[in-house]
Amino acid sequence: MTQFVSHLEAAIDGSEIPFGGLVNMHAGRPVWVRYHLDRVRSAVTPADIARRPPSLWRYRELLPLPTNVEPVTLGEGMTPLLHCPRLGQLLGLSNLYVKDESQLPTGSFKSRGMTAAVSLAKWLGVKRVALPTAGNAGGAAAAYAARAGLECFVFMPHDTPTVNQFEPYLYGAKAFRVNGLINDCGKIVRDGAERMGWFDLSTLKEPYRLEGKKTMGLELAEQLGWTLPDVILYPTGGGTGLIGMWKAFQELKELGWLTGNTFPRLISCQAEGCAPIVTAFDKGERFADLFPNARTVASGLRVPVAVGDFMMLDAIRASGGKAVAGSEPAIAPWMRRASSAEGIAVCPETAVCFDVLEKLIAAGDVARDEKVVVFNTGAAPKYLEALPVDLPALDKERIDWSVIEK
Amino acid sequence: MTQFVSHLEAAIDGSEIPFGGLVNMHAGRPVWVRYHLDRVRSAVTPADIARRPPSLWRYRELLPLPTNVEPVTLGEGMTPLLHCPRLGQLLGLSNLYVKDESQLPTGSFKSRGMTAAVSLAKWLGVKRVALPTAGNAGGAAAAYAARAGLECFVFMPHDTPTVNQFEPYLYGAKAFRVNGLINDCGKIVRDGAERMGWFDLSTLKEPYRLEGKKTMGLELAEQLGWTLPDVILYPTGGGTGLIGMWKAFQELKELGWLTGNTFPRLISCQAEGCAPIVTAFDKGERFADLFPNARTVASGLRVPVAVGDFMMLDAIRASGGKAVAGSEPAIAPWMRRASSAEGIAVCPETAVCFDVLEKLIAAGDVARDEKVVVFNTGAAPKYLEALPVDLPALDKERIDWSVIEK
Ligand SMILES: Cc1ncc(COP(=O)(O)O)c(C=O)c1O
Ligand SMILES: Cc1ncc(COP(=O)(O)O)c(C=O)c1O
Repeated sequence: MTQFVSHLEAAIDGSEIPFGGLVNMHAGRPVWVRYHLDRVRSAVTPADIARRPPSLWRYRELLPLPTNVEPVTLGEGMTPLLHCPRLGQLLGLSNLYVKDESQLPTGSFKSRGMTAAVSLAKWLGVKRVALPTAGNAGGAAAAYAARAGLECFVFMPHDTPTVNQFEPYLYGAKAFRVNGLINDCGKIVRDGAERMGWFDLSTLKEPYRLEGKKTMGLELAEQLGWTLPDVILYPTGGGTGLIGMWKAFQELKELGWLTGNTFPRLISCQAEGCAPIVTAFDKGERFADLFPNARTVASGLRVPVAVGDFMMLDAIRASGGKAVAGSEPAIAPWMRRASSAEGIAVCPETAVCFDVLEKLIAAGDVARDEKVVVFNTGAAPKYLEALPVDLPALDKERIDWSVIEK
Repeated sequence: MTQFVSHLEAAIDGSEIPFGGLVNMHAGRPVWVRYHLDRVRSAVTPADIARRPPSLWRYRELLPLPTNVEPVTLGEGMTPLLHCPRLGQLLGLSNLYVKDESQLPTGSFKSRGMTAAVSLAKWLGVKRVALPTAGNAGGAAAAYAARAGLECFVFMPHDTPTVNQFEPYLYGAKAFRVNGLINDCGKIVRDGAERMGWFDLSTLKEPYRLEGKKTMGLELAEQLGWTLPDVILYPTGGGTGLIGMWKAFQELKELGWLTGNTFPRLISCQAEGCAPIVTAFDKGERFADLFPNARTVASGLRVPVAVGDFMMLDAIRASGGKAVAGSEPAIAPWMRRASSAEGIAVCPETAVCFDVLEKLIAAGDVARDEKVVVFNTGAAPKYLEALPVDLPALDKERIDWSVIEK
């Protein structure tokens, strides 16, 4: 048995699409990967998985690549789930955890999606990939494309953080700055498809990045002994993380691998400067309008329109969770506060989650003894612009100890 | 059994120092940690270790913290050992591996040393630590000090890469820029010891960072099924990595855990702009002179004088290896070449290793079918200054496809 995928399924209307060819969207909306979970159940057990190397490919049977095909991998996955007593105390929580995705290749959780998407693209014969990026996805795509020997084209807003501009260049991708937002970059990728012959790797515009992101949910469950926490806070842009985790939990339930019976409440966190999902959630709608004048230092959340909007909103509502906006001026202080409390390099997107968490605790929406997991989706040093630094200078000939002591 | 350390041993003259108090150096030179390896052998087996979580603390019995004390940890260790066929082909090697330390917390191998040193410092009652840094050690010290709740003071040369200046600030350390080199920063730490009451965490000036670094060698052996490669290339500044790995191999041999009987040749790689160990190696000396006018974009190698010089030179010679300088103008091109070939974020220090490797292959010092391991000690995006990037700009209103196609 090398293949556990049964078929692909259009998320908007449930139509079946056969697995095995190059697929982007259906009716302009994303496509799910569906598995023969009964076959997975007889092929592998949690105990088998526990004995495998600490990479997200340990969940082979729940990933779309046939198990006899070598993945395109940089050793990604099994990021630590860190208990955070000091940060918990600061917030008034006794049971706070951070899953630290900053320790992945290219310093963000985007590597999870790309190891899956690039593995599938390579297997399906793709030679050239392209994508728009709000920042981290471009570096991750470029790295995995390099590892696979594929050509990669990256389009990013002109004011994307410097480190994110550096990465695709480092990995030999063809990268460009565009005087617009991520949706303007996305248009270039669509328009160039025929002329350039590239495969579109945009968020949720091919089915496999989502499967890679799903492993955040699988790892979390395994790390908690196949139980789930009470609450998950997740910074939401395109939505793959949130949607993927929810999909993972459903698959685990159907497999019978979970010990408990309850699912976590998913809290989708967005920055007030770009909060289309929060707006739609508050209005009770299933589809989100384009958010005008999107602007936030949390560049990964600068996604004014998302093709997976209804999938996010469905997951949030099914979980009994919420979509909440964090305030922009709270971002830089929370980066430093959270990083100083625990030594974790908290990115601006995750800083938004801490602002939201503080509000939810104050409102009584999160109880002080609940098990709360916050995802640190990226490494803070990728965002030099978010936290300008000017260290005090010392003259080696005349050390001023009062500066040091103060 | 919670304690496997037998004693500390002065590296320069073998004097015994009892374990359990705060120790820096002996006669101005570093101090080894020695273990009851017979007790380790009866307490744990490689099979036991294989079942433990993927953190460097899986080697508890070979680390100095009593096994009933919680370490100060961010989940560091078990970095992937990546087979690199594409990069191997470029160099003409059939068996090239990169151990990717850029995936550690704070994006460098410095985290290995700091999880050990800060764990011990905390256990021994230290409240305040200080260190000079060429770059990455400051970020790692600040992160682990934050995790432990200790105060941290960091002194770095004024032209240290921006990301390295950002990190200690992020983690709430007190960080300063100094108009000098790392040895000038070291002097401040020494001079302030009494006044400021801090514990000196400088490279090899306390015994435990070395023990943390040693785990690179332990992991490598475990990942290769308790065998060792033919050749290791390691970028050498203060020398903890090189010395630590050699120590690990000796301990593993004494434990009887290694399958083969041969040790790798250690190749110490330095940049021509700061190559004190290469100079001493070539002269056949055991101690290195201060390297004048130290200058290189590989900031971690900008260490003109090292208290562990003789320990490095002893290890290199005992292994049948060499110390070789890489050329400065080759650094930026090798960063990009190696990163583009495999999708690994190769830092300038490791770029130096690839230049050295190319020379050694050309000279017949490394055979084409030997198993060669290069350590990627840090993440390339920490060195924006080393590889200036200016991506081509596109106007979203008038896309110039010729720019994209070229
Ligand atoms: C650091 C970071 N966090 C969160 C996000 C949001 O991603 P998504 O909603 O697709 O999971 C991004 C996307 O760019 C990101 O880079
Ligand atoms: C990326 C990197 N590589 C290599 C080194 C050299 O370190 P050592 O010789 O102490 O192992 C350093 C030290 O700062 C570093 O930051």
